[in-house]
Amino acid sequence: MTAAARDRVRPRADVALMAGYHSPQVDVDVRLNTNESPVPPPDGFLDAVAAAVGQVPWHRYPDRGATALRARIAALHDVDPAQVFVANGSNEVLQTLTLAYGGPGRAVAVFEPTYALHSHIARTTGTDVAEGERGEGFALDLAEVRRVVDEAAPAITYLCSPNNPTGVVEPPAVVEEVRDLVPGLLVVDEAYAQFAPWSALSLVDDDAPLVVTRTFSKTWSMAAARLGYLVGPTWVVEELEKVVLPYHLDALKQAAGVAALDFVGAMEERVSHLVEERGRLETALRDLPCEVWPSSANFILFRPTGSDGGRVWQDLLDRSVLVRDCSSWPRLEGCLRVTVGTRDEDDRFLTALREVLA
Amino acid sequence: MTAAARDRVRPRADVALMAGYHSPQVDVDVRLNTNESPVPPPDGFLDAVAAAVGQVPWHRYPDRGATALRARIAALHDVDPAQVFVANGSNEVLQTLTLAYGGPGRAVAVFEPTYALHSHIARTTGTDVAEGERGEGFALDLAEVRRVVDEAAPAITYLCSPNNPTGVVEPPAVVEEVRDLVPGLLVVDEAYAQFAPWSALSLVDDDAPLVVTRTFSKTWSMAAARLGYLVGPTWVVEELEKVVLPYHLDALKQAAGVAALDFVGAMEERVSHLVEERGRLETALRDLPCEVWPSSANFILFRPTGSDGGRVWQDLLDRSVLVRDCSSWPRLEGCLRVTVGTRDEDDRFLTALREVLA
Repeated sequence: MTAAARDRVRPRADVALMAGYHSPQVDVDVRLNTNESPVPPPDGFLDAVAAAVGQVPWHRYPDRGATALRARIAALHDVDPAQVFVANGSNEVLQTLTLAYGGPGRAVAVFEPTYALHSHIARTTGTDVAEGERGEGFALDLAEVRRVVDEAAPAITYLCSPNNPTGVVEPPAVVEEVRDLVPGLLVVDEAYAQFAPWSALSLVDDDAPLVVTRTFSKTWSMAAARLGYLVGPTWVVEELEKVVLPYHLDALKQAAGVAALDFVGAMEERVSHLVEERGRLETALRDLPCEVWPSSANFILFRPTGSDGGRVWQDLLDRSVLVRDCSSWPRLEGCLRVTVGTRDEDDRFLTALREVLA
Repeated sequence: MTAAARDRVRPRADVALMAGYHSPQVDVDVRLNTNESPVPPPDGFLDAVAAAVGQVPWHRYPDRGATALRARIAALHDVDPAQVFVANGSNEVLQTLTLAYGGPGRAVAVFEPTYALHSHIARTTGTDVAEGERGEGFALDLAEVRRVVDEAAPAITYLCSPNNPTGVVEPPAVVEEVRDLVPGLLVVDEAYAQFAPWSALSLVDDDAPLVVTRTFSKTWSMAAARLGYLVGPTWVVEELEKVVLPYHLDALKQAAGVAALDFVGAMEERVSHLVEERGRLETALRDLPCEVWPSSANFILFRPTGSDGGRVWQDLLDRSVLVRDCSSWPRLEGCLRVTVGTRDEDDRFLTALREVLA
């Protein structure tokens, strides 16, 4: 009867499991595959969260409006709390945007190669995906943006900046031009913006159809916490509140986000250290037989020349070094992506790579 | 320019904010409006969660498969971990079900009055809602189920049992008949099942198109934690994993869920106490000028006779007692819903109600 029951209950769309995105549960010494922070949060943060466990009224529903957390994020970016939306990871921010502004009969525009969740979330919500191609060096090509926008009239256009997995940051003039070009909402996904020279947060305005998404996963050393947010016009936040599940954000996560924001100084120190380390790593990669793309994020995309990318990935793994294998992605043939780790982790990665490429 | 930007960026659907569902942020002595547990979790639970704060690798992504938590839930219900899906509250379970099996061109069936999120989530995902009416005493009417099913061929049919806000539990024979009748998936929402005499968990089978959803909010005293789950066929769980956001469940929540399951005995004690208290409350309500519906949940629906429901709600609030005002819901004209609280809370509610109805 299994076949009969399954036959009755068919999923709406043929959506594939987002394989490859996840951190393989392999036991390795050096884990540089998912752009996590290489260090845990400050001890003071852990103490604050542990204290919050005893203070949360567990048997009561959490503050639906996440008032305290939104006020702190708003203060950090000098915006109004009504311009801040918080969710379970920036992925849930993107899903909520898509539920509000995408859906059946609408399209999102993405420029590949880019963060795979943008198009994946569109597919899971019955939204069409209009795919454009990035230009030379993976920079955005405005003629291509115009072509996609004219063809698909996307309700949502995604710019990932710095772009994952290429590391390219879009200059302000390009973001402004795209904002004025698109017929709907421009979403600037800034999961990695703290590592970049500028942020589109400066363009957020209640009069502009532009939002910026951020995450606590990278710079805040909080990938385990699944906390992300959006800064955008008040009227966009109001629409998101309508379609997001009521009480989507638990009380302890709200407290953890507030606690993290007491450590802005520590976070900024970590970021400048990683940016410095990224420079060292990039220089070292350029001394090897590799094509290397300049990065404004906490990772570097590179392509071993004269060696098969998938083979190099496996040879590194055999040396207990895990990086991201992008070699099967369109336009990234033979490419690998390495997260900037601690100095020691990066040295072990470089030593292994030198051996593999020798 | 605000108007121009807003004009460009239009939400897909006219979805209203789920008002009324939320716990008003009013300062009251007796809060019996959202079916929360009246008591916090055991101290041992808090200690375990505080200890987990120091053990979670915060800078790493959580276990995507929530392996430990699913194994513990599976053991609790004597099913396979592959038959368990966990999410941020049972609302996210319902949303994920709707993304997988609902969506554009499909319908969900609900039987009103029932839990408002079933149809709300359908609307936020572009899914049609086929509404049926409950029969006498708010029991399910199988002829009405047949009518709705024939008309709408729903991909998902919801039974909330015990039903919110009426408290009615569906008997096993009815659930089995509906399961065999519907063309798609039958979702038995059992947010309140621990207070009821039986559970549809006994009907879960890989050969049956039936799933059961549960929450940690009520019996586990964990409304703040936003943790819910589903038990159903393996092949349903596989489809849910495809459309749910990767890494949707944070590491600390997974640890909190595991910690809670060390206190099954304490939870069962609380449940039997609440069931006993429900009996006392129901008897007391029947001595007042009220129509009272028998409940298998941790709340009671009642209708003051000879007094306006909305007026009674306000008069109770003026006495610092907050209950749920259902008086504007279709078919619940003049009705209020009171959560079973502690003995003291229930006494204060009864005293206030006696005054108000005098």
